[in-house]
Amino acid sequence: MTLMESARKGVFDLLEKAALTEGTDPEFIRKGLASGRIVIPHNPIHSPDPLAIGKGLRVKVNANIGTSKDHMDIPEEMDKARVALEYGADAIMDLSIGGDTREIRRTLLKEVPVIFGSVPVYEAGIASLNRGERIVDMTEDDIWNSIEDHAKDGVDFVVVHAGVNRQSVGRLKLQDRIINMVSRGGSFHTAWIEHNDQENPLYENFDYLLELARKYELTLSLGDGFRSGSTHDANDRAMMQELITIGELVQRCRDAGVQSMVEGPGHVPLNQIASNVQVMKSVTKEAPYYVLGPLVTDIAPGYDHITGAIGGAIAGHAGVDFLCYVTPSEHLCLPNVDDVRRGVVTSRIAAHAADLANGLPSAIQKDYDMSKARNELDWEKMFSIALDPVEARRYRQSRKPTESDVCSMCGEACAIRLVNKSLE
Amino acid sequence: MTLMESARKGVFDLLEKAALTEGTDPEFIRKGLASGRIVIPHNPIHSPDPLAIGKGLRVKVNANIGTSKDHMDIPEEMDKARVALEYGADAIMDLSIGGDTREIRRTLLKEVPVIFGSVPVYEAGIASLNRGERIVDMTEDDIWNSIEDHAKDGVDFVVVHAGVNRQSVGRLKLQDRIINMVSRGGSFHTAWIEHNDQENPLYENFDYLLELARKYELTLSLGDGFRSGSTHDANDRAMMQELITIGELVQRCRDAGVQSMVEGPGHVPLNQIASNVQVMKSVTKEAPYYVLGPLVTDIAPGYDHITGAIGGAIAGHAGVDFLCYVTPSEHLCLPNVDDVRRGVVTSRIAAHAADLANGLPSAIQKDYDMSKARNELDWEKMFSIALDPVEARRYRQSRKPTESDVCSMCGEACAIRLVNKSLE
Repeated sequence: MTLMESARKGVFDLLEKAALTEGTDPEFIRKGLASGRIVIPHNPIHSPDPLAIGKGLRVKVNANIGTSKDHMDIPEEMDKARVALEYGADAIMDLSIGGDTREIRRTLLKEVPVIFGSVPVYEAGIASLNRGERIVDMTEDDIWNSIEDHAKDGVDFVVVHAGVNRQSVGRLKLQDRIINMVSRGGSFHTAWIEHNDQENPLYENFDYLLELARKYELTLSLGDGFRSGSTHDANDRAMMQELITIGELVQRCRDAGVQSMVEGPGHVPLNQIASNVQVMKSVTKEAPYYVLGPLVTDIAPGYDHITGAIGGAIAGHAGVDFLCYVTPSEHLCLPNVDDVRRGVVTSRIAAHAADLANGLPSAIQKDYDMSKARNELDWEKMFSIALDPVEARRYRQSRKPTESDVCSMCGEACAIRLVNKSLE
Repeated sequence: MTLMESARKGVFDLLEKAALTEGTDPEFIRKGLASGRIVIPHNPIHSPDPLAIGKGLRVKVNANIGTSKDHMDIPEEMDKARVALEYGADAIMDLSIGGDTREIRRTLLKEVPVIFGSVPVYEAGIASLNRGERIVDMTEDDIWNSIEDHAKDGVDFVVVHAGVNRQSVGRLKLQDRIINMVSRGGSFHTAWIEHNDQENPLYENFDYLLELARKYELTLSLGDGFRSGSTHDANDRAMMQELITIGELVQRCRDAGVQSMVEGPGHVPLNQIASNVQVMKSVTKEAPYYVLGPLVTDIAPGYDHITGAIGGAIAGHAGVDFLCYVTPSEHLCLPNVDDVRRGVVTSRIAAHAADLANGLPSAIQKDYDMSKARNELDWEKMFSIALDPVEARRYRQSRKPTESDVCSMCGEACAIRLVNKSLE
């Protein structure tokens, strides 16, 4: 019996733990899980700390790490994972494509106690490259084996680009996108479909994917191969076509008792984010929504953690459940450990800002406590509540005030102190 | 005849220049200026590059600089101004309260070609402190002299907290704010009103302020003394009381042919930003709105440029015309030159994201050009369009790919290249 099927019978231990972590009622989680509005990605082989993602819950943050062909350093990836967890990432995805990717994944899975995701098709493409062939030469077996390998290693959720099929690729060709595709996994499948003139096996044999998912309690993250890579391409026909298909696949997952969530963009002007989220939620009947950013402009390379936080906060308030962080190195190079830290903190800001706007009591309490401490000029308290205490303390130490209770911006002209005294 | 009165007669040279800079029709600017929906802060003594701010125009960015008692270094302030301008600040405000503030202001005004603002009441408070008295002992003459001194030095727009009066302070006392007040100028007036049991001279003798403004073509920026310093205190009764008064003062400015804009918060949960902007625009009959942030959470000291960019982007889309940047050092210490750079770039991201969402053709074109360059893997073009080319280039150089056309994130697995080839 899968977790989803169990939830349809009643509350169970894992679900109670997830509810406890969330500070909510187990029955609320149970109903959400049973209906597919909430997921608890949980491969028993990995057995991560139970975490629920979805409607009515705290917005979660994922940190992508992983090697590339140009940078493969396992200890550095381990450091990235540690820093991501230290700064509050709720999930880690390993997107490695360089070096011994299976070894990297197994090493990471041993050390990472939170839910862990991956994109198996990368490894299918690499398997082909390692045989001296091209990505488009990967076999159907490469694709299926990669998914089962990841499941056997303990991966809790896998991205599957099952919505990238002949129909959506066909729609792409009828358009005039500025950037055809920026999804790495989506591009593997698109090039494969075009080159081999065959349907995407993940779509064609989706029932087999469901079998695998049932066998390993694998949560399917339905990848958005057509996510916009330019604000000009946002919410277009190719993406909508893929979303329709994904909506159907979500239904098939639910019918099969398989947990699924849906991935989203991408580059989106901020006025189009709410409509994107609303359409996705209606088409998928409220599947958990997992977005990359969204980035609200294309022109800020070096600062895309920020363009992503603007979009992420708006998306979280519009109903998105899970944010994939973006680091400052996005569009430019593989992130290093410090980029990971900045990416996680910035995405946590977006998630928290959304939680606050959504009226989540725990988020409201944090802002309340911080403001109380600020009013009392209680600096140690402020640092203890800050999302990044190290950075906050570093700033204050860098330019010390002569009077210890205020800061060096206003010094003796501190508004808080002046008015509190005058109203005493 | 003031600029506003001139605009009521017809188009003139300065207005045409502002329209040219904006890429819009002079008649559009003229109507906006005549009615008070647009300002062109322009003290003839300073004579900055003409810049229009207000309804239907590009969202502008201001950078605050200035000394404090704990840090007074004129060359550093000059560097801050230069960096702010280099990275695209549309305006500079000097908030100096340490050292010879008049000398600092005059030095800055000579070097800064863009519109320049200040908060004269700081100098009134300092004058009192310099006499060995307290801020609350500043005299009415101190207050009026500070404004005229700033006007004579060439300041283009001055913040006047004329809405901080007995009525709004009274409303504050009827509330239970977490942080009573965070506006420095607002706190000077509040403490003064309470200590002296007298009405704020700027409110009581607003007609004299209008006379000064007419004499020097001084744009009045009606300060928000009651801006929320905690997300819990956002959009409350004290702030609304001040806004009502400010709405009346805006009308008196317009009747007197004096340009005015209105300042806004502050710390505001993101779901309350649009309503704040809409209420302000209706109460003031569409005065230009100038906001600090807004910061969408209290718990991210060290990252408040980001919390401010999230709020600023949403605010800009909701109708805000002018963003005051926030630096990473906000709430912690006086910013240094690098903090100023990061603050300006981040605020420019917010302003541009709003312009893009608002359908501004020049903003749309920039994103289009960047995405075209990205699709062509034309790195030099990307750097030339990037908001911070230095930072973008630094990132790419830090982890070079082995293949020159791609980046080190995906390398040979570049989605753009793979799909463009497959669809050729």
